[in-house]
Amino acid sequence: MTEKSIWLIQETTKEQLQTLKDLAPEYKLINGWEIDEKNVPLKSVEIIYGWTGQRSEELLLDGKHNLKWVQGKAAGVDFLDLEKLKENKVLLTNGSGIHSISIAESVFGMLLAYARGIQKAVKDQQTKKWEQVDKLMELHGKTIMIVGTGKIGVEVGRLAKAFNMKTIGVNRSGREVAYMDLLIKQPRLIEQVKQADIVVNILPFTDQTHHFFNQEIFSQMKNGTLFINVGRGPTVKTDDLIEALDGGKLAFAGLDVFETEPLSETSALWTRADVLITPHIAGIAEHFKKRLFAIFEENLKAYLDGETLPINLIDYDNQY
Amino acid sequence: MTEKSIWLIQETTKEQLQTLKDLAPEYKLINGWEIDEKNVPLKSVEIIYGWTGQRSEELLLDGKHNLKWVQGKAAGVDFLDLEKLKENKVLLTNGSGIHSISIAESVFGMLLAYARGIQKAVKDQQTKKWEQVDKLMELHGKTIMIVGTGKIGVEVGRLAKAFNMKTIGVNRSGREVAYMDLLIKQPRLIEQVKQADIVVNILPFTDQTHHFFNQEIFSQMKNGTLFINVGRGPTVKTDDLIEALDGGKLAFAGLDVFETEPLSETSALWTRADVLITPHIAGIAEHFKKRLFAIFEENLKAYLDGETLPINLIDYDNQY
Repeated sequence: MTEKSIWLIQETTKEQLQTLKDLAPEYKLINGWEIDEKNVPLKSVEIIYGWTGQRSEELLLDGKHNLKWVQGKAAGVDFLDLEKLKENKVLLTNGSGIHSISIAESVFGMLLAYARGIQKAVKDQQTKKWEQVDKLMELHGKTIMIVGTGKIGVEVGRLAKAFNMKTIGVNRSGREVAYMDLLIKQPRLIEQVKQADIVVNILPFTDQTHHFFNQEIFSQMKNGTLFINVGRGPTVKTDDLIEALDGGKLAFAGLDVFETEPLSETSALWTRADVLITPHIAGIAEHFKKRLFAIFEENLKAYLDGETLPINLIDYDNQY
Repeated sequence: MTEKSIWLIQETTKEQLQTLKDLAPEYKLINGWEIDEKNVPLKSVEIIYGWTGQRSEELLLDGKHNLKWVQGKAAGVDFLDLEKLKENKVLLTNGSGIHSISIAESVFGMLLAYARGIQKAVKDQQTKKWEQVDKLMELHGKTIMIVGTGKIGVEVGRLAKAFNMKTIGVNRSGREVAYMDLLIKQPRLIEQVKQADIVVNILPFTDQTHHFFNQEIFSQMKNGTLFINVGRGPTVKTDDLIEALDGGKLAFAGLDVFETEPLSETSALWTRADVLITPHIAGIAEHFKKRLFAIFEENLKAYLDGETLPINLIDYDNQY
């Protein structure tokens, strides 16, 4: 009988390991980033938990591998070779939902850092400067446009309603989504964006979303709009974003993701007072390991029973 | 007939001025910080709008003044001479309620600045440092103790529930308050404070609250508690707060108010990475002028009709 194994790249606790042994006794469990080929040949790997693309060329060598299912850890899957995975009929599930709470909290952290003068205060503290500003904003009563209404977008909408904001959701299908006062289809964004005081970008990176936020859209915004990007860097054309800040269309940009990461030292974004940079950390969830394992465990049960994977199965045609 | 006047220290719009003229045609309206005594003698002042204590000795000269009612602008009234006002039977109403939204938003801005790594990111941005941290917190699921359950405390509780937190309210009477999962009387705080992950201080400054938060209370907290002060500076003993940070009882302090303001350049608080200083700005409300005037207008109508002032009348015995 051929050896079968599960490669656990994402760290697991003792209890989680035991759960896996009980669920899948016929599989060898490989721990950690590196595989000791003497012990377990890469060819035996049927399932990967927490893959971020390690040794993908060997693992997807046509006809020479045994890989059948990858449980990713992020919500985005743009950094994986989706074509190759699809060709090789490898199932892919992602970590969507795990990051909703942390990302939504980060969105409001960034917005409040600007609105309540906290970003400025942190900088002033460095030079012991006590300077009261007389104009501060409240989120209360503002209109927020949420572009991308998956689990993260819904959680942003839920909190926005708690802050007594008006919410406009934007998605491709136009399907109704919880916590959105108004839902519009993506092509109508450009004519509706001037209603928004705040625009939050949660788009995944796909062939369709490259440079989605560009001069064409920024120019239609009202002056002084606040812009947040917690989606993917390449969905925003950075040069156009900077132009929108310079021209007053944007009063503030809170950015967690960038066209290239880490952000280059030469980027003009670093030194702008109207930009808040966080180093792709919005998705760092406090109970990440527990939440990701819960998804993996449910999917594994179905996998072993030969059923469709119930949680977060990627549709390769949509790229998310 | 003796001349009567209303001193408008708080700025008013044209429309607001017209409203006052229509409501109180028999009163002279004095605009701005300074009174031109040649035009209007100080003795004629019966009502002050937005007083922060200007010329109080003359205005409260026993038997020599005509001051009957002061509409304050802040929620706190600790900076006014309450004894003297009481003795002289001057009515005092405050701006309570105006600041609830802005202060509650600032509380969550400070908490999220810590929990989501934003405070660190703002500092790192200054030196173009891209450094991902692997441990970040979420507010979701945490227990927040809200000390002081007036309008601000209720608004903090409301938002805390939206963030899926457990709320413990603390007040003097033990009366039930909206959005609190648990309500305890102030003397029980010391035995219950270890339940809290986060403690928010919204106490007013009165004879009873001086140095309320001191070593005795900090020592009962669980290690790593987050502490926010948006009440009044003197309700916290700064030396004991610093000791609690050094000893690990507190992981973070977000402070908007201080024992002396502006905060002295020599204060040890400035240079601490575990302290976030905002320069007494949490209460700066976006629609402040409109909201304060609405209170003043309602109270003025009642005053002119000889009725009890309906909004925010201070009880001198409670000092708030």
